[in-house]
Amino acid sequence: MSIRLLNERELNFQLYEVLDTEALLQRPRYAEHDRAVFDATLQTARAIATDYLAPHNQKGDANEPTFDGEKVTLIPETKVAWAALSQAGFHAAHHDAEYGGLQLPEVILRTCVAYFSAANIATAAYSFLTIGAANLVKSFASDALRDRFLPPMLDGRYSGTMALTEPGQGSALGDIRTSARQSADGSYRVFGQKMFISGGDHELTENIVHMVLARIEGAPAGVKGISLFLVPKVLVNDAGHLGKRNDVALAGLLHKMGYRNTTSTVLSFGEQGGAVGYLVGEPNKGLSYMFQMMNEARIGVALGASVLAYQSYLHALDYARERPQGRAPASKDPLSPQVRIVEHADVRRMLLQQKVYAEGSLSLCLYASSLFEDAHTAPTASAREDAAELLDLLIPMVKSYPSKYGVLASDLGIQILGGSGYIREYPLEQYYRDNRLNPIHEGTEGIHGLDLLARKLSQRGGKGYRLFLQAARSSIESASGACTEIAAALADALAILEQVSTDLLAQVNANTDAGLANATAYLDLFGRVLVGWIWLRQAMVADRALEAGTGSDETAFYQGKIHAARYFMNWELAGLASQARLLSAGDSLTYDMQDKWF
Amino acid sequence: MSIRLLNERELNFQLYEVLDTEALLQRPRYAEHDRAVFDATLQTARAIATDYLAPHNQKGDANEPTFDGEKVTLIPETKVAWAALSQAGFHAAHHDAEYGGLQLPEVILRTCVAYFSAANIATAAYSFLTIGAANLVKSFASDALRDRFLPPMLDGRYSGTMALTEPGQGSALGDIRTSARQSADGSYRVFGQKMFISGGDHELTENIVHMVLARIEGAPAGVKGISLFLVPKVLVNDAGHLGKRNDVALAGLLHKMGYRNTTSTVLSFGEQGGAVGYLVGEPNKGLSYMFQMMNEARIGVALGASVLAYQSYLHALDYARERPQGRAPASKDPLSPQVRIVEHADVRRMLLQQKVYAEGSLSLCLYASSLFEDAHTAPTASAREDAAELLDLLIPMVKSYPSKYGVLASDLGIQILGGSGYIREYPLEQYYRDNRLNPIHEGTEGIHGLDLLARKLSQRGGKGYRLFLQAARSSIESASGACTEIAAALADALAILEQVSTDLLAQVNANTDAGLANATAYLDLFGRVLVGWIWLRQAMVADRALEAGTGSDETAFYQGKIHAARYFMNWELAGLASQARLLSAGDSLTYDMQDKWF
Repeated sequence: MSIRLLNERELNFQLYEVLDTEALLQRPRYAEHDRAVFDATLQTARAIATDYLAPHNQKGDANEPTFDGEKVTLIPETKVAWAALSQAGFHAAHHDAEYGGLQLPEVILRTCVAYFSAANIATAAYSFLTIGAANLVKSFASDALRDRFLPPMLDGRYSGTMALTEPGQGSALGDIRTSARQSADGSYRVFGQKMFISGGDHELTENIVHMVLARIEGAPAGVKGISLFLVPKVLVNDAGHLGKRNDVALAGLLHKMGYRNTTSTVLSFGEQGGAVGYLVGEPNKGLSYMFQMMNEARIGVALGASVLAYQSYLHALDYARERPQGRAPASKDPLSPQVRIVEHADVRRMLLQQKVYAEGSLSLCLYASSLFEDAHTAPTASAREDAAELLDLLIPMVKSYPSKYGVLASDLGIQILGGSGYIREYPLEQYYRDNRLNPIHEGTEGIHGLDLLARKLSQRGGKGYRLFLQAARSSIESASGACTEIAAALADALAILEQVSTDLLAQVNANTDAGLANATAYLDLFGRVLVGWIWLRQAMVADRALEAGTGSDETAFYQGKIHAARYFMNWELAGLASQARLLSAGDSLTYDMQDKWF
Repeated sequence: MSIRLLNERELNFQLYEVLDTEALLQRPRYAEHDRAVFDATLQTARAIATDYLAPHNQKGDANEPTFDGEKVTLIPETKVAWAALSQAGFHAAHHDAEYGGLQLPEVILRTCVAYFSAANIATAAYSFLTIGAANLVKSFASDALRDRFLPPMLDGRYSGTMALTEPGQGSALGDIRTSARQSADGSYRVFGQKMFISGGDHELTENIVHMVLARIEGAPAGVKGISLFLVPKVLVNDAGHLGKRNDVALAGLLHKMGYRNTTSTVLSFGEQGGAVGYLVGEPNKGLSYMFQMMNEARIGVALGASVLAYQSYLHALDYARERPQGRAPASKDPLSPQVRIVEHADVRRMLLQQKVYAEGSLSLCLYASSLFEDAHTAPTASAREDAAELLDLLIPMVKSYPSKYGVLASDLGIQILGGSGYIREYPLEQYYRDNRLNPIHEGTEGIHGLDLLARKLSQRGGKGYRLFLQAARSSIESASGACTEIAAALADALAILEQVSTDLLAQVNANTDAGLANATAYLDLFGRVLVGWIWLRQAMVADRALEAGTGSDETAFYQGKIHAARYFMNWELAGLASQARLLSAGDSLTYDMQDKWF
């Protein structure tokens, strides 16, 4: 059975019907483009994903990277794929033409990366990380640093990493202990150990640019004393020529459950006298720089989770349409032919759940990308500010919902295939293993719950939150036809969210720690309401298209959207009110649980 | 960090406080035993699990079985463990002394197997399967067959399999196509292919006894034409001597995501003229025999899921108690020491969820084992019948709840460890992969949902269901003190279950297929109410113990039980009412979903 790679019809629906991506062509940055350029770019991405990434997805999983003490070895297909991605310009696609970029909108770049991740998330991760690191260099490095390091990152000669986590602090970035000491030439010497650094070593590129969070000696304690450094694996002179190895050593590879073809590394900086590092931007502002880039990275991780969910859905759907087994419960004749399992109600239930998780997540991530785009290129300053504010509020859910429910979609894929879902002869179990990383990296749900309730919800007077409510209400008010009932269900959910938000903010004000104890449950509740809105948006587009009249394939596509939205409201939002009551009542059972009672 | 193996205090609580296992000593079958015998048996099981099974759990996962076309190779520790289990008598532990068994109660045997599965579920599976196959031989085979095959299965010279599934039918046993033709000597020749046969080939034992479902030529179509055959890997003459290989060939090994040290096989019967098979019991009654054994197998699978959940919980708990990271949200001083992550409310929430899933599932499975025991050895015929009837009703939930929520407990374990949970340097990810099989084998939730709603709920006038309601009401009525509120919450849940059960039965009567469409959601709802009752039972025991007065460690243990029960009622049963409303209303969104809309 061949594996479909995403679904072009679905992507076009999201890009050109739900989002008005063509309207971006009106903006000066994209004036030279037209829709054909967008589509050609997507076609190229699809072709590279199909030809260079998908074929070694399973092989990379079965033959994970090795380290012989000197060199890391990856299966050779990885380097070929990297070269194809570089040559096609994808590492520079969203950059301005002046940097050699294709000057493409964020949402088009992200959709391209969606293809790469759907085909082979582990190999695609090297590009994903490099794009993120290059964005940091571009945004915050001095001209000199940027001129030296950005061009080879954009053309694929260098790759990049984000080196935040250390063995001793995990999610608590304020406790970073990697240190930096300024030397006579103005550069720094960096000392310390970083862990779980994806792409931290390999031979894909002639150099690796590590974006490292470290503490300049004497800097304030906590998050206010963290600076950002560019630390290359190989030193580069002013003329851009490679010199000797920097003092960055691979202490070891970690062996992951999934994403296996992405090296996960422990890196030691400065064991031989100090790793040469260059300060990026100002001292002690490292975390704020990193946070400005994290929104992109979080949308990216969420999109990866979404497309793994989507692949799980597509494969389970193909299987369910081909596999005959059993009969309807009312069918008593054992001589009647078996039916395809898609005809069993419970299989349809699982496929429908997969569909709402996968398509809802995908739609949410592309919507978030469009906000990111608007934050940078919308015509007016207030539109840019609003987009940035709304995105900032939504990021915790944008990261967490696809990560959590994406794993569930992969899980359901296994269940639909039964025993076949569980064996490596089919791709489902790899999607499941790959996808399980996504609720961890770029912030766990626990971290995002706190970020949402302790900060995002009320920051700048709760402006982002108000913008979300306005947007959702606006959809509800303009819903009609088949969407009236869907909108009414969302209105109920929105009212629940408003009440619980008010109650929780009051609880946090009264007692920070106790008030934040149920933040993860609130994050999940907000995420479901948000994706409910995302489904209403899709259903409204579908309803309008049906009213306008379409061919039968198209009719089925749109009817599926409306039916899925109904399902989401009835089944996925069931229980919302009673869960909200627990939160509003300040149920403290988890907060009160004592260590010794476990 | 050393890995704890279950928790003796917890097992003693379940066996001797929640269940009155000592009371079994009053029954004639156990009159020769005393509590010391039970405890010594459990200690031996724990020692074997620690010394022979746990040490190669990870190694067996990393070095899965191979097949060179002639022979299957397992890591050698597997055979050493098998020998230890055999020599200690565990393959015969529950059999009567006349068969060389230890004549131990079912619940003691199952607790021993719980130790083995917690230590190494993949190696323990060979024993689990052999015990199941031997039970079939003992219960249904002729004296001659039993005399020839049972003794070597009980002493560990032979192992056993259950060969049901075929490539073409999956869960639909009525469509089995493996055929059997009687030959002149009264034995049969079996032809066909079986798939996903665990333990289907290996060199652990000198012979393998396959219990094969097949259709005698000319038998009725469907489930009424299925017979059970004993098909040995190596032929055995009347004197019990091994002869030549039977016509059973290993067509190939399947490569699983977890349970890797258990071979999963495709077996071909009769490619060289016919595999010699012996009819077990009467023709065409194979499925009824198999079903009589399935209750044991299902409790066994569920217990495996429970102990993997339990191991995930224990390991995450140890990690959370040792790992310092971050501070409470209200703590603003970056120079204050980091706290252990068990002090973070969200980590406690996850541990509490793990605790209620793992201990709730374990308690449920041991309760089911005690019903199984009562069905065989309770003093009166009516007590035996009632136990059998109640167990039969509960089996779908007993199988499904621990399988589903056990995976969630393993998933939460990964999340508590964060990146460390995801890498193979820690055991969590293996528990997760191992545990994911359990919602599939011995019947998916889809199958059990139909079994519950289409059959079990109303069979024999709904007697089993009434017995459950009586038992739950009886607990609720006798709850007092700290348990009054817990019992009130369960009473609400029980009322919801009763209403939805009535409504769904009416829907099934009106339209079988539509009425059964939401059977899996009903199964989940029933399972949560059932485990709510299991938690009330535990809390009541704990409350009585606290009232009687205990030492401080014991106080903490019992308080944990009561707190966990409260958590279960508030959080795990939240949403029950609204989910039930969907079912009572006959929401048909999944049933109405059309294939072409996906």
